[in-house]
Amino acid sequence: MDGCIFCKIIKKEIPATILYQDEQVTAFLDIAPINLGHILVIPNEHHCSASTIPEAVAGHLFKVATELGIALKRACNADAYNLHLADGTAAGQVVMHAHLHVVPRFIDDHFHWNWRQLAYASPDAMNEMKATILSKFRLPTESAE
Amino acid sequence: MDGCIFCKIIKKEIPATILYQDEQVTAFLDIAPINLGHILVIPNEHHCSASTIPEAVAGHLFKVATELGIALKRACNADAYNLHLADGTAAGQVVMHAHLHVVPRFIDDHFHWNWRQLAYASPDAMNEMKATILSKFRLPTESAE
Repeated sequence: MDGCIFCKIIKKEIPATILYQDEQVTAFLDIAPINLGHILVIPNEHHCSASTIPEAVAGHLFKVATELGIALKRACNADAYNLHLADGTAAGQVVMHAHLHVVPRFIDDHFHWNWRQLAYASPDAMNEMKATILSKFRLPTESAE
Repeated sequence: MDGCIFCKIIKKEIPATILYQDEQVTAFLDIAPINLGHILVIPNEHHCSASTIPEAVAGHLFKVATELGIALKRACNADAYNLHLADGTAAGQVVMHAHLHVVPRFIDDHFHWNWRQLAYASPDAMNEMKATILSKFRLPTESAE
């Protein structure tokens, strides 16, 4: 898409340290990494939202990301990796071309996600949440208990 | 796998608020949510690591997760969603059955990932990182620039 910085990277119109590229996806180093080696994997086709990426492309994106996660562990002695995706501004998305972060993690990297744990008021509250979510869910739900 | 709490959830041997289940994946409410509505999507086949999930299953997992993300936006008035996966203890993985978090996000949810931005010393340092990562990367790299 015109004006999209990630589309320009895919087309080599602006520089980036590209690690991998095929017909469907492109992977390159994040220039402001959480840890050195932090990678972004993106679909070559412009999608603002991850939700419009076709399933086959999403599978390939995920597979390339996990293989890069393994490479980070083996090559950089990372202990683990995070996959992370922000869909929408309120989730932290800044570039409006869907991108999956692959972040190498080390036992002693002094980084942590500031996780918090809320609680439902009751089992009924969980069932109400389920009904609310399923009222707008588009895949078949016959198998749900 | 025997002893895996998520395998037990899939087989309905222990209770969970299951939102969706098919031949490949199961989605259920996280009992300690970052925000109410926080969902976990898992492959039915036991994989400790996301890296061993077959590409087709990963694509379906991703698609179910993003459709649930949309449902959270529409049904719960979420503004956005995060997908998040921890592969390994150092990344924050607690249950050793790969799981993709779908976290509804709201402009005013007072939650943030404690992102940090490091920097490479030079363009050469980025190219050295590229070479290091690619030395262990298992997919074809002919298309990388």
